[in-house]
Amino acid sequence: MRVVLSHTSHPGNIGAAARAMKTMGLRHLHLINPYRFPDPQATAMAAGADDILENAVVCSSIDEALHGVAFTVAMTARLRDISIEVKTPREAMPELLQQASAQPVALLFGTEMSGLTNEEMGKAQVLVNIPTDPDFSSLNLAAAVQVMAYELNVAAQGFVPKVAEARPASHEQMEGYYAHLEKVLFEIGFFTTQNPARMMQRLRRLYARARPEPDEINILRGMLSVTTEYNARLKTRYQQEHQDSLNIHANNQQNV
Amino acid sequence: MRVVLSHTSHPGNIGAAARAMKTMGLRHLHLINPYRFPDPQATAMAAGADDILENAVVCSSIDEALHGVAFTVAMTARLRDISIEVKTPREAMPELLQQASAQPVALLFGTEMSGLTNEEMGKAQVLVNIPTDPDFSSLNLAAAVQVMAYELNVAAQGFVPKVAEARPASHEQMEGYYAHLEKVLFEIGFFTTQNPARMMQRLRRLYARARPEPDEINILRGMLSVTTEYNARLKTRYQQEHQDSLNIHANNQQNV
Repeated sequence: MRVVLSHTSHPGNIGAAARAMKTMGLRHLHLINPYRFPDPQATAMAAGADDILENAVVCSSIDEALHGVAFTVAMTARLRDISIEVKTPREAMPELLQQASAQPVALLFGTEMSGLTNEEMGKAQVLVNIPTDPDFSSLNLAAAVQVMAYELNVAAQGFVPKVAEARPASHEQMEGYYAHLEKVLFEIGFFTTQNPARMMQRLRRLYARARPEPDEINILRGMLSVTTEYNARLKTRYQQEHQDSLNIHANNQQNV
Repeated sequence: MRVVLSHTSHPGNIGAAARAMKTMGLRHLHLINPYRFPDPQATAMAAGADDILENAVVCSSIDEALHGVAFTVAMTARLRDISIEVKTPREAMPELLQQASAQPVALLFGTEMSGLTNEEMGKAQVLVNIPTDPDFSSLNLAAAVQVMAYELNVAAQGFVPKVAEARPASHEQMEGYYAHLEKVLFEIGFFTTQNPARMMQRLRRLYARARPEPDEINILRGMLSVTTEYNARLKTRYQQEHQDSLNIHANNQQNV
């Protein structure tokens, strides 16, 4: 179980988040481009969770931070318009624990001011919103980490993972698929009337809900490869036919 | 619903606690002898919950902070030896909400370093322990407020109070009873072989579990009053008899 903090502005929040993690038995912290880290303020706020800060992994991208992870829960303060699965912390925990029993999982938190970007949320399988007073939803970053870690700790009491659960594709496999899909959709001219970024977000949501297994990703990518090959064959045949018709035309010319 | 922070050392924690409260719709903050308040650090950490700080009530004693309150949930980090009802946050919420539907209730938090005193915990009807990793149970004060306020907010969704619930005695009624009881126990010499403070703590636990109604407190105090009156009558009778025997003795002397 990995906690990932993206682009955190205040080092004190990193320390307070580390403390919140440690009280609930979480140990592994990944930081994407923290504004200042390490920092004395982080250490002061960790108040004894220094080991978590010392072992924190600083990354330069979300893909690096989620490397090897197969299931990511991302936090969102807003209930967005995008067609999306947003759960409460309590609803999300059983699946998070189930997934964690078989492979690496992550809890992903955005910046203090603006949360996660759409691109970052697109890397997650589930979005979670901590219910707040609608008139004042400004939850402190470390407070959000505390609530999630607390819910996880409570849910973990007496949790028994189901066996023989399907193993989902890894973060790298999913990203490989999305890149492949986008390339083919460009290739076939799908994006001429669409906003590519927004359409890819929606497709990410769809496939995130499906929790594809590695074999299924192979099938999906196989379909993409065949699409490209078919297009290539079509193109070759078209060019051939075009060449043939040019030849015929040339022959006709000669025969005139 | 009142949040009471006792003897808070760091003004930043008061501000962070106010922010945590406001995110979950709590408004009323009482501070018992805060080390520094108001303070710019409190305002900075409140991050928009300034109204809660401005309306905070600073008190000089726990009895002042709990004035008018009929049901108090107190936080404890330690699972003590004393015979006591310690619940998880989730277990405590239904009763807290039920009580809050009929009269003022309080959530009581101790200091950063040592939590609540035994005397302070003796004023509560229920103790709550937030489950943590036993190797690192050092929950930040504002983080504890956040977890409790969050649990309360979740529990409040769709909560419907039961009607015709018995109305418990107020904080003042209970304190009046305990003072009366202690006085009578001294009067009858109950404490000669007991530690009075410890014994009163145990009696507080017992009566806290019983959630006495105002009428029942009247009955209990009635019993105490009758005990005192009976003792007084006994004493008068003893003195009368003693006087009588002295008189007889004197008469006998005269008759010699």
